[in-house]
Amino acid sequence: MNPVTIALIGGSGQMGRWLQRFFTEHGHQVLTADLDTRETPQEAAAQADVVILSVPIPKVVAVAQDLAPHLRPDAALMDVTSVKQRPLDAMLKAFAGEVVGTHPLFGPKEKSIEGRTVVLCPGRGERWLNWLKDLLTQAGAKVKVTSATEHDRLMAVVQGLSHFVLIALERSIRQLGVSLQDLEDYSTPTFATLHNLARRLLSQDAQLYACIQLANPANRPALRALDDAVADILYFIQRQNSEGLVRLLEEIKEGFVGEKAL
Amino acid sequence: MNPVTIALIGGSGQMGRWLQRFFTEHGHQVLTADLDTRETPQEAAAQADVVILSVPIPKVVAVAQDLAPHLRPDAALMDVTSVKQRPLDAMLKAFAGEVVGTHPLFGPKEKSIEGRTVVLCPGRGERWLNWLKDLLTQAGAKVKVTSATEHDRLMAVVQGLSHFVLIALERSIRQLGVSLQDLEDYSTPTFATLHNLARRLLSQDAQLYACIQLANPANRPALRALDDAVADILYFIQRQNSEGLVRLLEEIKEGFVGEKAL
Repeated sequence: MNPVTIALIGGSGQMGRWLQRFFTEHGHQVLTADLDTRETPQEAAAQADVVILSVPIPKVVAVAQDLAPHLRPDAALMDVTSVKQRPLDAMLKAFAGEVVGTHPLFGPKEKSIEGRTVVLCPGRGERWLNWLKDLLTQAGAKVKVTSATEHDRLMAVVQGLSHFVLIALERSIRQLGVSLQDLEDYSTPTFATLHNLARRLLSQDAQLYACIQLANPANRPALRALDDAVADILYFIQRQNSEGLVRLLEEIKEGFVGEKAL
Repeated sequence: MNPVTIALIGGSGQMGRWLQRFFTEHGHQVLTADLDTRETPQEAAAQADVVILSVPIPKVVAVAQDLAPHLRPDAALMDVTSVKQRPLDAMLKAFAGEVVGTHPLFGPKEKSIEGRTVVLCPGRGERWLNWLKDLLTQAGAKVKVTSATEHDRLMAVVQGLSHFVLIALERSIRQLGVSLQDLEDYSTPTFATLHNLARRLLSQDAQLYACIQLANPANRPALRALDDAVADILYFIQRQNSEGLVRLLEEIKEGFVGEKAL
């Protein structure tokens, strides 16, 4: 693969540093620009074949508008945020050249990309989309190409709902005032795994995890479904209706039939 | 340790078979009685030093009342159900001799007891309580001795709330009609772990998991806390209040300070 020049905007963040290492290891030249770098984002963007926005979700629109006039017309504009509809729309509107929305489905603590999934949402053009797809595939990543709408619909479950239930569980524990030492002493294997997942999630950037709840329009129907599910289960518990609760559990179980382990 | 005779009532169930293997491996004589065995529960109970009820939670009261008159006065009556207050009260009321409530905090799929936790709730007497405690400790289990009330309070979180959030998550997924194949293709490491936990739980006996939600009186305040937590988080999401949601996440995070990994 010929070396290309990549401008990483927001390169000082955790994911920015991860991407810098990744692209450098694959033989590409990476220009890193952030609020604190000598080279400005505009200067870096102007020299690059590929400009990747690795900035917080609420900043993507403004940064895309700010940088687009400085990009070479044959360059590509990409982002790496956890939602795709709005950032992709914003990039397409700001820049007339190639545009790709991306979402690596893993955090900056993963050592290798091997076996991990990266979602690509085509915006405009195919040259840099195919370049990125080939690069990721050769590096051992699973690449899924889909629309921004479909990405957001699935992430409303994979990130939105799953983070929500972990946050709700830990919030309840705090409100009940149960000591974490007692929970550790009386832990089951299931609880230990769940509690560790929650803790790992909550130890990370609160701004990012708040954004994941707030910035995905598809979270709305997903959260309505969760709210309904909570009410359905509580309905049977409050009435001590064992038969109804067993039926609800059996219905969910039937949906698993034939599914492989993740 | 001298060999003792143990009557396992409900010995044909999964946990019953696990206990039979465990006690046999430790040199004790196990009499197994169930609905389908030649020896009746009464006959087995009459011969035993220790009578262990391994029956569904709703049956403990009736089985304890039924068997108590057949027990030797110097025998001990024990159970292994997931809640402790009501079964312990029922056993104490039915039988005048030694009584111990127990709860192994693991399922019948665990190969070894080593490193796993067993909770013991003293009812009446110390001879058989100490015998069991020594046996479990020597086998490598962590033994926690506490009151039935405290056990139930902690299990309302460790089992009640944690199972509840897994069930609610999977119920929402079914209601949204998102395909499990899509979820697999777009899974993050966090979601994969969570979804596998839920699937493992739901693949087991629905009656048991319904009982865990229904039979613990301490679930009531815990579920109220969860319902409030869901409402608190939704409040900030519906108002797109990023600052409020970040504060809520930071508050939970502060509670983790100094905690060891489970």
